[in-house]
Amino acid sequence: MGDATLHTMWDDLHPIGRDRGTGGYRRYAWTDADLTMREWFAGEADRRGMGLTEDGNGNQFAWWGDPSDGDSVLTGSHLDSVPQGGAYDGPLGVVSGFAAVDTLRAQGFQPARPIGVANFVDEEGSRFGVPCAGSRLLTGALSAERARALRDRDGRSLDEVLHGRNRDPEQLGPDPELLGRIGAYVELHVEQGRGLIEEDAAIGVASAIWPHGRWRFEFHGRADHAGTTRMADRNDPMLTYAMTALAANKQARLADARATFGRVEVEPNGTNAIPSLVRAWLDARASDEDTVTSMVTTIERLASERAGRDGTRIEVEAESTSGTTTFDAALRHRIVTAIAGPNGDPVPVLPTGAGHDAGILSAAGVPTAMLFVRNPTGISHAPDEYAEPADCEAGVVALTRVLEDLASR
Amino acid sequence: MGDATLHTMWDDLHPIGRDRGTGGYRRYAWTDADLTMREWFAGEADRRGMGLTEDGNGNQFAWWGDPSDGDSVLTGSHLDSVPQGGAYDGPLGVVSGFAAVDTLRAQGFQPARPIGVANFVDEEGSRFGVPCAGSRLLTGALSAERARALRDRDGRSLDEVLHGRNRDPEQLGPDPELLGRIGAYVELHVEQGRGLIEEDAAIGVASAIWPHGRWRFEFHGRADHAGTTRMADRNDPMLTYAMTALAANKQARLADARATFGRVEVEPNGTNAIPSLVRAWLDARASDEDTVTSMVTTIERLASERAGRDGTRIEVEAESTSGTTTFDAALRHRIVTAIAGPNGDPVPVLPTGAGHDAGILSAAGVPTAMLFVRNPTGISHAPDEYAEPADCEAGVVALTRVLEDLASR
Repeated sequence: MGDATLHTMWDDLHPIGRDRGTGGYRRYAWTDADLTMREWFAGEADRRGMGLTEDGNGNQFAWWGDPSDGDSVLTGSHLDSVPQGGAYDGPLGVVSGFAAVDTLRAQGFQPARPIGVANFVDEEGSRFGVPCAGSRLLTGALSAERARALRDRDGRSLDEVLHGRNRDPEQLGPDPELLGRIGAYVELHVEQGRGLIEEDAAIGVASAIWPHGRWRFEFHGRADHAGTTRMADRNDPMLTYAMTALAANKQARLADARATFGRVEVEPNGTNAIPSLVRAWLDARASDEDTVTSMVTTIERLASERAGRDGTRIEVEAESTSGTTTFDAALRHRIVTAIAGPNGDPVPVLPTGAGHDAGILSAAGVPTAMLFVRNPTGISHAPDEYAEPADCEAGVVALTRVLEDLASR
Repeated sequence: MGDATLHTMWDDLHPIGRDRGTGGYRRYAWTDADLTMREWFAGEADRRGMGLTEDGNGNQFAWWGDPSDGDSVLTGSHLDSVPQGGAYDGPLGVVSGFAAVDTLRAQGFQPARPIGVANFVDEEGSRFGVPCAGSRLLTGALSAERARALRDRDGRSLDEVLHGRNRDPEQLGPDPELLGRIGAYVELHVEQGRGLIEEDAAIGVASAIWPHGRWRFEFHGRADHAGTTRMADRNDPMLTYAMTALAANKQARLADARATFGRVEVEPNGTNAIPSLVRAWLDARASDEDTVTSMVTTIERLASERAGRDGTRIEVEAESTSGTTTFDAALRHRIVTAIAGPNGDPVPVLPTGAGHDAGILSAAGVPTAMLFVRNPTGISHAPDEYAEPADCEAGVVALTRVLEDLASR
């Protein structure tokens, strides 16, 4: 059963929000593509006779058993994507969760605790700028007030967007009762680096999530004519930005960290106009919080110094920051043992530089763990992201063992 | 009469296509704002009893006298804008042309040659990327075939856009008969630099337009996850672009030229994604063509070398280039004499780094000249662009003398 259902689920998801030119996905929160993904989720719950619940933030849960019994075992991930994202980041965890439920049922397993599959809304933050917005709202790490005021690139607030989708933005906010009923959360995810390639393993378990954050840099200059304004008379913020992008790269290399400027907006963005404003977002991560902080401070200082020479001005605002997430050690040990199975193959344990809803739930006190499935390209957040069918199958087998172990008591 | 009409014309134009937040204008070819400007032009012709003609490219002409008599004296400019442009670049020449006609008529002047006021379509190239598209089509410097295939930022071709405006794109193309009837073209324009501030003069006359061009640089890399991809494993085109933007600035300073990257597009442009592509436009100008060519060649070479180190790849395409325009010496001498008037005040003669329809007509053999009106901010292509009312009035007086002189025979 598992195999055929797995294929059907992937076939159903394949065309949703896909750019046929590049093969990349655009599934941003509360867009038509996202609503189609949510409908798909509801349909998968329904066809399995799993009860569908939603919290006030739009996070979806499909239940095997009665979630009000509490101490549930939750798995799943998210269904939204980055711009031109890959097929696996998010959906692999949800699909594998449903497939594991199918396998357990086919084996005649009777869970002693409720088992749930989750779809957390707006994990990537592609539309409103805050990653893991759904899980942050659930735990209270993001306030409902701030969330309602977030705006997308067209200037529409989340409040307006939710109203337009017949949702009530007043329902946004933390749900301690729901959170308290989650006994454990295990998120399966495609790996986003080359760790498992190097370990030559199909499956791994996460040790920790690196601390990370997003900083919005605004470089303010003076718009002017590109042809008639002497170089010496300019206040060109593009130069300040360009030096800052190079400095960020250099600082990340020096600190064995990551720093990326991947999103840029220019005003007025005309070929023959010196810009008045360059807005660019720094994504920074490292293995410890001090490294992130000192790296970002250094980048900001170098940007400021250059702004002084360019006659421009910078403003920097932290849009989101997350400290180190160290996953529950006891749960990890139990999971590694369960996956290894009777033959006792060792399972690699490795950290990740990517943020996940699992990190948000962990910070809120939920015992949390993550499984990774090997990505043979090592590429993520791009159409080349991939997982071999055999590795996906190994992921389902591992997740099945984990759910069986945790829900057996 | 002149003063009151001048005020009315500016008041009518003030709100059209204006961003009330910044005060900047967005009047791109064939947008609603541009159509409103064109209607305004037709209305101004009509209220003066001037015959309105259009060529197949959408260039508008208001005639005092019968243009088929030939050897006409044409003035005017354009009514479109750059993104967030100023109020004067373009409209000042058209408004001053109508005002000069009003003054001549009030004086009872009887022209011996037809006098025309022109509005050349799409001078800035803000929408379809080719500046002076209307005058280039008229002279044949831009082929109708290439023009029809030009696309705006939403991917719509000029062909589609013209169809959508009930225009026939098959009518695009050169009009040698119309061109042959223009005996002289005198374009009045707000100055876009600080030349007249330094000369302490309200009015100046152009000697030449610097050679200039636009080059589209495409920096190709590999999209990947900003958090999980090690710095050493990246092919990040943002770095190649950033170095190229700094190199362009340095080369322009060394060559006493101008080089600007003012327009940038990033794909996928997500905060947590290394870009797959950065597209950026270089605007380059200098006092002679060899300097432009060698500067662009050097910038391209430096970009290529950096691409080799970043594991990225560049493609460069010249979107438009213009050689030096040296305006007609005899016409300039006559104009300087006419403006100086009986008291013989010297009129500054100066070159400009900005391209104009006057340069396109001059290259096609039309005796051409330009008048500049002082810009006290020295800023152009931005909301701070300005001309004092007294200087605008001096511009009208000068243009009136020039038209009177040229149309007296």
